[in-house]
Amino acid sequence: MADPDSVRRRPGGRSARVRSAVLQATLDQLFAVGYERLSVRKVAAAAGVAPTTVYRRWGSRPELVLAALTELSAVTILAPDTGSVRGDLRVLAGEIAGALSQPPVTALMRSMITLPDDVAGEYRRSFWADRTSRTAVIVERGIARGELPATTDPTAVLELLIAPIWFRLLISSTPIDDLALDRWVQAALAASDG
Amino acid sequence: MADPDSVRRRPGGRSARVRSAVLQATLDQLFAVGYERLSVRKVAAAAGVAPTTVYRRWGSRPELVLAALTELSAVTILAPDTGSVRGDLRVLAGEIAGALSQPPVTALMRSMITLPDDVAGEYRRSFWADRTSRTAVIVERGIARGELPATTDPTAVLELLIAPIWFRLLISSTPIDDLALDRWVQAALAASDG
Repeated sequence: MADPDSVRRRPGGRSARVRSAVLQATLDQLFAVGYERLSVRKVAAAAGVAPTTVYRRWGSRPELVLAALTELSAVTILAPDTGSVRGDLRVLAGEIAGALSQPPVTALMRSMITLPDDVAGEYRRSFWADRTSRTAVIVERGIARGELPATTDPTAVLELLIAPIWFRLLISSTPIDDLALDRWVQAALAASDG
Repeated sequence: MADPDSVRRRPGGRSARVRSAVLQATLDQLFAVGYERLSVRKVAAAAGVAPTTVYRRWGSRPELVLAALTELSAVTILAPDTGSVRGDLRVLAGEIAGALSQPPVTALMRSMITLPDDVAGEYRRSFWADRTSRTAVIVERGIARGELPATTDPTAVLELLIAPIWFRLLISSTPIDDLALDRWVQAALAASDG
């Protein structure tokens, strides 16, 4: 007998359809009205479910929004496969910089960063764990090809690549050019020796 | 005859005293009530000046707050001088991580990041230009000692050191340990070849 959880969560089941409809409705609302004015009740209505279904499954607004953003980044930011770790990191950096510098995305990220850690810390950590696990293959392939030491930590490399992008867009308000992206790839690769 | 601006701004003059009193009152208010509830009128009263003096000199609230934070970081985060560029960067990284991870400082930085670029972009760029110019001497001494290539860009090195600290504290909500600080120093130095 299948365990109840695997039945409830099987792809294509009702649960998966509800999840997909709610997260899509959340993204639609986010880009239409922004985080501050997002209404869980309106999200539920647009997804055709009861508000209690949303609260039961996602908790409250920050959790719901971070789940929707995790889903969005999973389908929009993929691990490139150019044949070299340097090439892959460079393409990934360009894609992330391009996605984050869209004004509605930048505005959304600013409002998510406002939330204090006691509200959103756990969800931020899980968002980044998800992002890292989806792009770690870039580093793993680099190790397999002998481009990086076997002890290289994918999380450390990806963090060094991504941190300056977020820093410029959200914190120092400085535009990003190709030269900067090249330099950050270089620095991220250098950290693989540490 | 001295030009009027240099008279007005000479250290120790009335203008310098007003500036110092207003920025100190701003910091006091910020740490007491936070950015959202900071009142320019109350800051002016605490500094013993008219609100119009504050508005004329600093513009509006975000400019005033960023000026106060620039002043605070100028006196609290100094360029260390350990005898090696690696040592200096490591001490600086530890000091910044320590200062930023104080809960009231983290909360304040979160609220400053919320402001969109059309309000605060120029002030953020000038804050970072000030921070960089005060610590560039670390890289310049490294070049003079032959530890770094003469073409090394201090801004690029310092940005790579600082970005992951801000990223963890504000964006990924991940604690910072000594191993991470060592790795970021390594990566920042590696970027000097770029």
